[in-house]
Amino acid sequence: MIRKILIANRGEIAVRVMRSCYEMGIQSVAVFSEADRTARHTLYADEAYCIGSASAKDSYLNIEKIIQVAKACQADAIHPGYGFLSENADFARRCREENIVFIGPQPETMEAMGDKIAARIKMIEAGVPVVPGTQDNLKSVDEAITLCKQIGFPVMLKASMGGGGKGMRLIHSESEVEEAYTMAKSEAMASFGDDTVYLEKFVEEPHHIEFQILGDKHGNVIHLCERECSIQRRNQKVIEESPSPFINETIRQEMGMKAVAAAKAVNYEGAGTIEFLVDKHHQYYFLEMNTRLQVEHPITEEVLGVDLVKEQIRIADGQVMRLSQNNIKQRGHAIECRICAEDTEQNFRPSPGIIKQLIEPNGIGVRIDSYAYEGYEIPVYYDPMIGKLIVWATTREYAIERMRRVLYEYKITGIKTNINYLRCIVETEDFIDGKYDTGFIPKHSDHLHIGITTHTEEEENVAMIAAYIDYLMNLDENSTQSADNRPISRWREFGLHKGILRI
Amino acid sequence: MIRKILIANRGEIAVRVMRSCYEMGIQSVAVFSEADRTARHTLYADEAYCIGSASAKDSYLNIEKIIQVAKACQADAIHPGYGFLSENADFARRCREENIVFIGPQPETMEAMGDKIAARIKMIEAGVPVVPGTQDNLKSVDEAITLCKQIGFPVMLKASMGGGGKGMRLIHSESEVEEAYTMAKSEAMASFGDDTVYLEKFVEEPHHIEFQILGDKHGNVIHLCERECSIQRRNQKVIEESPSPFINETIRQEMGMKAVAAAKAVNYEGAGTIEFLVDKHHQYYFLEMNTRLQVEHPITEEVLGVDLVKEQIRIADGQVMRLSQNNIKQRGHAIECRICAEDTEQNFRPSPGIIKQLIEPNGIGVRIDSYAYEGYEIPVYYDPMIGKLIVWATTREYAIERMRRVLYEYKITGIKTNINYLRCIVETEDFIDGKYDTGFIPKHSDHLHIGITTHTEEEENVAMIAAYIDYLMNLDENSTQSADNRPISRWREFGLHKGILRI
Repeated sequence: MIRKILIANRGEIAVRVMRSCYEMGIQSVAVFSEADRTARHTLYADEAYCIGSASAKDSYLNIEKIIQVAKACQADAIHPGYGFLSENADFARRCREENIVFIGPQPETMEAMGDKIAARIKMIEAGVPVVPGTQDNLKSVDEAITLCKQIGFPVMLKASMGGGGKGMRLIHSESEVEEAYTMAKSEAMASFGDDTVYLEKFVEEPHHIEFQILGDKHGNVIHLCERECSIQRRNQKVIEESPSPFINETIRQEMGMKAVAAAKAVNYEGAGTIEFLVDKHHQYYFLEMNTRLQVEHPITEEVLGVDLVKEQIRIADGQVMRLSQNNIKQRGHAIECRICAEDTEQNFRPSPGIIKQLIEPNGIGVRIDSYAYEGYEIPVYYDPMIGKLIVWATTREYAIERMRRVLYEYKITGIKTNINYLRCIVETEDFIDGKYDTGFIPKHSDHLHIGITTHTEEEENVAMIAAYIDYLMNLDENSTQSADNRPISRWREFGLHKGILRI
Repeated sequence: MIRKILIANRGEIAVRVMRSCYEMGIQSVAVFSEADRTARHTLYADEAYCIGSASAKDSYLNIEKIIQVAKACQADAIHPGYGFLSENADFARRCREENIVFIGPQPETMEAMGDKIAARIKMIEAGVPVVPGTQDNLKSVDEAITLCKQIGFPVMLKASMGGGGKGMRLIHSESEVEEAYTMAKSEAMASFGDDTVYLEKFVEEPHHIEFQILGDKHGNVIHLCERECSIQRRNQKVIEESPSPFINETIRQEMGMKAVAAAKAVNYEGAGTIEFLVDKHHQYYFLEMNTRLQVEHPITEEVLGVDLVKEQIRIADGQVMRLSQNNIKQRGHAIECRICAEDTEQNFRPSPGIIKQLIEPNGIGVRIDSYAYEGYEIPVYYDPMIGKLIVWATTREYAIERMRRVLYEYKITGIKTNINYLRCIVETEDFIDGKYDTGFIPKHSDHLHIGITTHTEEEENVAMIAAYIDYLMNLDENSTQSADNRPISRWREFGLHKGILRI
């Protein structure tokens, strides 16, 4: 029986997990770096322990310190969140050795899925379609050339241990093979300490569509439908939605069954994600499995009415899953925007600093998973994502309308954010029409930076003064006139409406 | 085609309506009193007009000024919200005369339902059960005594134009009739300018359960299930939930059909509510109809996945309702708490003032409809409700767990609020078990004021300093020890955890 959980993470996901702990009556334990003493997860937890310096290597990636705290405070379980140690099989194994429940799959599963080549073989055996390509480590440039010809150009060269675009090369013709091979291998060695590379058919106009799965310790595995994650910038997701506007119910069912087969093939326990590439002809291919909770898990929660963190905890506790495939029915449509402290005009450079003013949208159909608060200083050391803005509505059209409204209400000053950039995406015709693939951002990148005018603080001050003068004038007139028919301020023109003024 | 709507209201409901307008691409127009120049609805709207002094009579109840603004800014329609002019048939009639769409039922419907005696006759004709009692105006004490005996004690004496407990008297025996009759009549005359009174059977251990209905201009009427509103203090709702833990599916269907019959009997257009009293034997009686949007409408929205304001606007626009009774399926459970600026220790005296710090809960399953923001001064002139906290979860049990969590996260300083009082209700066994009727608050009132310890700002400061000392001590140890195993602060003991500290 899990009574106390250490959350080996920071930021919005740590708070997210603690919220479900609180609701389940489970004590939560935070670990934090010296840079995170005033972070929301540190303050939210029932207990909080400093485990090291700002450097993640010394704190959030420090397996032994985290294990030590867990033992000292008698935590029954550790939730790794996403990122950091969440897909580290050694960490999961250390937990097992210390009789601490790791809230995630077994280390063997993580290893099986972490190695891209091994995962591919598993998937082929399980009948899950994979992108045509090689399964073995490429030994030479000559071998690469021969295999590229067999697969047919364009071909993608990939690092076996890779992720985030590192060690990847697109090859259009035979003449490019040698350079790509040499570069990818050296990049892979530098990034992952392993230069194993392989080849894959390049999928044209690909969609990134992933299926959420849940498996318990009793062999039950279900899928929780899909998330469309094709709005990406440099392989980083920016906006996700569910259901996907690209696939129909038949394909959904088929892909869902394949996702379940994939999870069963590795005896999956807990919450995981099967990522597929889907080409313009709706052919889908297994891309990889993420053996953890995803950033974008809330859109699944909104559409299906489930709490994935609670499900993770119950599964880790050894309970038989109460959800069954028949209960999983999509209702309405959800969209998530990732809110980042970054300067979109300066090549998306992170913009850490103190949050001067924060007004988060609320009302019908809005969910915010964030760790921001007024006066909080976002540290420079970690991921610039400060939270996620999620909307739900009955249809995709209404969800987009709602997302526009809530992006308009969102106000953060003191730091730069990507909110305006997100507005531009949501206002783009291809997005509104649901006609986009992973090429959306490169295709629209010019427009996305100039689409909406922003207003400086000075302009806002001018508008405030104008409003105040108007107010004073009206004060005089009120006594003699029956109605004051002039607007006090033209908020829209000044970019002030939908925000909050403090006069 | 409605393109611009004037919202003749203030506070959270004005913002609520404007949000749906924004999502529908409809321009919103605020009217505001001099006390509301910095109110959120004033700042949120596309246009905002000052219509008078702080006194509601001069501003939010001033029919002619509102009509004048609507005409001047060319609004196609007026949304009255709840309270103020929302159930004023004269206002609806004035709108009609000026060719402005009134978003609500026809004035004739409002009049038919506004007169309690006339409404009762209508309901009897429509086959809707009513509480046994008289239909006619009582002429004398003698007549009252005779009728009380016929109905059987206990009997309730009520003012025909009444509301909010004014002009009501509970009569247990014949000896009490004369005084009750005299007092009720004079109170009714003083409050409503009309001393018409009538008698009703007193319902024992009553539940207040209401059904949301929607009717369009084409004769289609549906119900949107129930809201359990029995947690009341002096006839004011405090917490509402849906579904009701008291009724089963058979009674729900039956009451729903009666609610539809009631609405059809008065050719109802728009969103309305049929309130029932339900006794301990599950006998239900028509209580009254509210011909407007209710404060507690969000719990219906959460459970059914509808946007009632959008439905109101579409209906007012003459559209055929897209919802049908077959589509109305309850999913999960929603609870609403009304957050009020009031001092629960001082007989719930309103506590206006400047909001110093505001941290609203967020994350999974939370919705806040509020007009509060940091630095805003809540005026003394209006209702002390500053917003509503709504949670949704798959079951009632989980919804209660979530409500506890979010009440814990909610932090408002600078003014007194009822948040702690709400926590006490949510922690009460009878509430958790769903075993309560309208007598809940009187029954538990002692406990509700002492249940949870609160902490002063000074105590919090002490805790902050303690945390900081601990921090400094840990800084020294970090260099020599591998892990710092002591918590930096015991938030729970200091009442600080689940809140945000600013060190």
